[in-house]
Amino acid sequence: MRLQADPTLEPASETGWRRTWFDIIYRHDTRRARNFDLLLIFAILASVLVIMLDSVASIHTRHARLLYSMEWAFTLLFSIEYAMRLAVVRNPLRYALSLWGLIDLFSILPTYLSLLVPGSQSLLVVRVLRMLRLFRVLKLTRYVEESGVLMGALVRSRRKILLFLSALVTIAVVFGALMYVVEGPHHGFTDIPTSIYWAIVTMATVGFGDIAPQSALGRFVTSVLILIGYSIIAVPTGIYTAELASSLRGGPDAGQADPRLCTACGLQGHDPLAAYCRQCGQALPPAPGST
Amino acid sequence: MRLQADPTLEPASETGWRRTWFDIIYRHDTRRARNFDLLLIFAILASVLVIMLDSVASIHTRHARLLYSMEWAFTLLFSIEYAMRLAVVRNPLRYALSLWGLIDLFSILPTYLSLLVPGSQSLLVVRVLRMLRLFRVLKLTRYVEESGVLMGALVRSRRKILLFLSALVTIAVVFGALMYVVEGPHHGFTDIPTSIYWAIVTMATVGFGDIAPQSALGRFVTSVLILIGYSIIAVPTGIYTAELASSLRGGPDAGQADPRLCTACGLQGHDPLAAYCRQCGQALPPAPGST
Amino acid sequence: MRLQADPTLEPASETGWRRTWFDIIYRHDTRRARNFDLLLIFAILASVLVIMLDSVASIHTRHARLLYSMEWAFTLLFSIEYAMRLAVVRNPLRYALSLWGLIDLFSILPTYLSLLVPGSQSLLVVRVLRMLRLFRVLKLTRYVEESGVLMGALVRSRRKILLFLSALVTIAVVFGALMYVVEGPHHGFTDIPTSIYWAIVTMATVGFGDIAPQSALGRFVTSVLILIGYSIIAVPTGIYTAELASSLRGGPDAGQADPRLCTACGLQGHDPLAAYCRQCGQALPPAPGST
Amino acid sequence: MRLQADPTLEPASETGWRRTWFDIIYRHDTRRARNFDLLLIFAILASVLVIMLDSVASIHTRHARLLYSMEWAFTLLFSIEYAMRLAVVRNPLRYALSLWGLIDLFSILPTYLSLLVPGSQSLLVVRVLRMLRLFRVLKLTRYVEESGVLMGALVRSRRKILLFLSALVTIAVVFGALMYVVEGPHHGFTDIPTSIYWAIVTMATVGFGDIAPQSALGRFVTSVLILIGYSIIAVPTGIYTAELASSLRGGPDAGQADPRLCTACGLQGHDPLAAYCRQCGQALPPAPGST
Repeated sequence: MRLQADPTLEPASETGWRRTWFDIIYRHDTRRARNFDLLLIFAILASVLVIMLDSVASIHTRHARLLYSMEWAFTLLFSIEYAMRLAVVRNPLRYALSLWGLIDLFSILPTYLSLLVPGSQSLLVVRVLRMLRLFRVLKLTRYVEESGVLMGALVRSRRKILLFLSALVTIAVVFGALMYVVEGPHHGFTDIPTSIYWAIVTMATVGFGDIAPQSALGRFVTSVLILIGYSIIAVPTGIYTAELASSLRGGPDAGQADPRLCTACGLQGHDPLAAYCRQCGQALPPAPGST
Repeated sequence: MRLQADPTLEPASETGWRRTWFDIIYRHDTRRARNFDLLLIFAILASVLVIMLDSVASIHTRHARLLYSMEWAFTLLFSIEYAMRLAVVRNPLRYALSLWGLIDLFSILPTYLSLLVPGSQSLLVVRVLRMLRLFRVLKLTRYVEESGVLMGALVRSRRKILLFLSALVTIAVVFGALMYVVEGPHHGFTDIPTSIYWAIVTMATVGFGDIAPQSALGRFVTSVLILIGYSIIAVPTGIYTAELASSLRGGPDAGQADPRLCTACGLQGHDPLAAYCRQCGQALPPAPGST
Repeated sequence: MRLQADPTLEPASETGWRRTWFDIIYRHDTRRARNFDLLLIFAILASVLVIMLDSVASIHTRHARLLYSMEWAFTLLFSIEYAMRLAVVRNPLRYALSLWGLIDLFSILPTYLSLLVPGSQSLLVVRVLRMLRLFRVLKLTRYVEESGVLMGALVRSRRKILLFLSALVTIAVVFGALMYVVEGPHHGFTDIPTSIYWAIVTMATVGFGDIAPQSALGRFVTSVLILIGYSIIAVPTGIYTAELASSLRGGPDAGQADPRLCTACGLQGHDPLAAYCRQCGQALPPAPGST
Repeated sequence: MRLQADPTLEPASETGWRRTWFDIIYRHDTRRARNFDLLLIFAILASVLVIMLDSVASIHTRHARLLYSMEWAFTLLFSIEYAMRLAVVRNPLRYALSLWGLIDLFSILPTYLSLLVPGSQSLLVVRVLRMLRLFRVLKLTRYVEESGVLMGALVRSRRKILLFLSALVTIAVVFGALMYVVEGPHHGFTDIPTSIYWAIVTMATVGFGDIAPQSALGRFVTSVLILIGYSIIAVPTGIYTAELASSLRGGPDAGQADPRLCTACGLQGHDPLAAYCRQCGQALPPAPGST
């Protein structure tokens, strides 16, 4: 829902071309608005493809000129789109400072900046800026209305998952430091941050193998770390599954959403099916509509 | 279910050998049909084994002749089977253009094509063609009737899983580009597509290690990517588990959707199939349409 | 349950030392039987430790004699135990041919065989035989009575998981062959069996990295394979979770276990809480004890 | 809950500065107590950061003096805190021997010990001791009150998960020994403990790739091991999800355990906390002991 266009955005005027274009750009329920959306998705994907191809050395050397032109073409196209978006809303600043407004801006800025910061020594910087244009991809999610359910369950289990992640990081810090002592720099565990990186890679069962224990004790500690990671990999899955199952079912959360207070004892959190307070037996007001 | 033989296929004639063979080839409920199926499964597995052994250099040099003959024997066998399948159906074109018809064709074609495209320079091409014969393996799934439940839950959660995958790919694109900038070509992140490949390998916790971050910043970004991946690995599991649990249970969804109250004792939450209250025996109003 | 001592085993005689020892060896509910069990667990773990230490080159060269004696001591101890087990049951052959009887035999046999097959050239073979002694470890599970619930859910979801695994192997075969053609022997995909091994390693998100794609196309195919694997990793988890949740809840299965038939309409499968038939309203017999 | 400050700790006196500081240090519900907690969290994180940075060779050489001073500053700060904690409780020994008391002690001891054990040859030992100071990080969990639910489900599924882990280790031992025989020392499987480490790394889908099978038979055995691991990775997830779902729901388990029937309408399945029937308002018999 937060990924939808900001509902507080209003057209700059109720009639005229600004109203027409507002409907085309910000709404998604007419034929013309949908065509505009499809066109934009196509342009975004194409521009990302151009950036990706440009990064491949063999393609860059052969088609540098073409890719450079296309990059500018897309940048101009998105600049016009950005100007239009600003022009047709009543409060352009609100759009410009919203999450999507910033992403729209960042996806055109780097190309312009690459003109101001020329020279061979700034190549690396330019690459950083160009990378930002890939945030364009994020725009795609705006068009997915259905992500609501999945996103909702994720947002509701956010606190629990953050808690879990901090427990994970704590274990990674302790085991990272332990492995730094046990294995030491000559086995690849060059410092504690590197060891922590290794511990995260190991606990999450990624296991690149760029760093790996080589002593017997190190391998034993690693086995223990893996078994710990393997035991708690269940936790985020459990959190999310329980949350999603309950939201598909309209479950405990629906129960919590039941706003009825007992008029006698003040107890909240009644079963939506309940007609009487389970604590004092007082008749409850009718439920505000079942889930 | 979609993996069953196309139910719209009809025998070419109601009597005679074509009817007999139609029943043997396309049906699975008589003794002869089952024997035919078993024979075919055995032939498919054996032919795949021959192709696999032929690819092992040491075996190929010693038994080239034998393996070559066997490959041709299986190809002829499957060609006869393919001809029979065409011969006994009323509408051969419908079979030929169905998914299974195409797989059946592709599993015999490469061997014939290897005669037309001879010479040492085409060895690679021939291998590509031969590989296609392995699609024979896919035929096996046709014989598994029980996959219905599992497949059903997968098909029903298809949209949600696709949505999840596109979110995953979006994150992979952004982080791939980021790592391309942070680590650069001299650390193995040679171009953005390669970096995206690396990001997918990392997020899915595969972690080959053929490419791995080597700078401190790169390792920090990798840790963040891994923690993101680790947090959302729960999503497809949650989707599928909730879907499967609800279909095994015949559904809380179904239960809650049933709005009927017992007129005698007021109990809600009846089985949609129930005609009488399970608590007091009172006749229930008719269900508003089963799920 | 199948891992318990075979309940069909009966003491060789109802009195005397054979009865006494039968109770000590095969039962687990007296003080002496428990002491015997603990002693056996300790001996098994110690003997496995000896084998493990003996395999470490630096320890072997220093303590070869000691470890050799201990290995023989444990072998004699387990041989006596095996003879006792045979002696105190009424039908020794039934025990000898049961799963546990065979494991007990295989855990002592290799040491004796190493006497008959001497000579330096056969050392490798002897090692194979010695490895079998590690099956002793499997004995440990016999003592875990509680594994019943977990094992039960695993056994009940056995068919579904096998189906899933064969789908996994089918995909691995097709993608293995595809990668053999795409990457070829000079990138490590030396033959189709090796490629299939690589595909399994990749789909299961293990990702050793001993073999990894190096061409752009190969990396694209790998990404697709990983996304497929990532989408269906949910399947076994979903199967098992749904099965376990339902057995913890006494759920649909318990419902099926409710043996009450409606005396009027014959419907089975009532809610254990139900007092009246949900189909015809007939009073049900009392439930045979709630789950 | 076990991670909270020990509820049996009592202030040394009911009035005076000791009471004041007891409330600041051990309680978390006043403004000053919260400020103290925040300050302590900040100090812990900063001190861990200093240790981490000190381990990076390039930073150590440039800022050795600064980092050394900061390490001593934090050590003194935590020493004062430790002394305060001892001073304000009635029974200092009970605190000192509690889990948190020991962690608090271990997080300051190593720095002092590094004075007593000087000399270049003992540098490695000092590193071991310094690592222990990272246990400070563990203190952080004390401040997370919400981890109760997640921790509770983990604690309740503890037995099942331990059982699962021992099954995992058993399989790892058998397959480790098998691979030691199949692949042998010249392929990296130098001894059985190393092979077991490899089997754990493989089954848990970490797959570093530092050791990998190279023979055809070894790769086949590895594939089997991976498929086994892939099938049972569902088990801890299933256990935890089922446990968490049931505790979020307030539980079918709880519901089923409550045997009370409403004497008026006969409804069963009441909340164990309920004193009145939620359907008809009738007073319920007292619950037979809450779950």
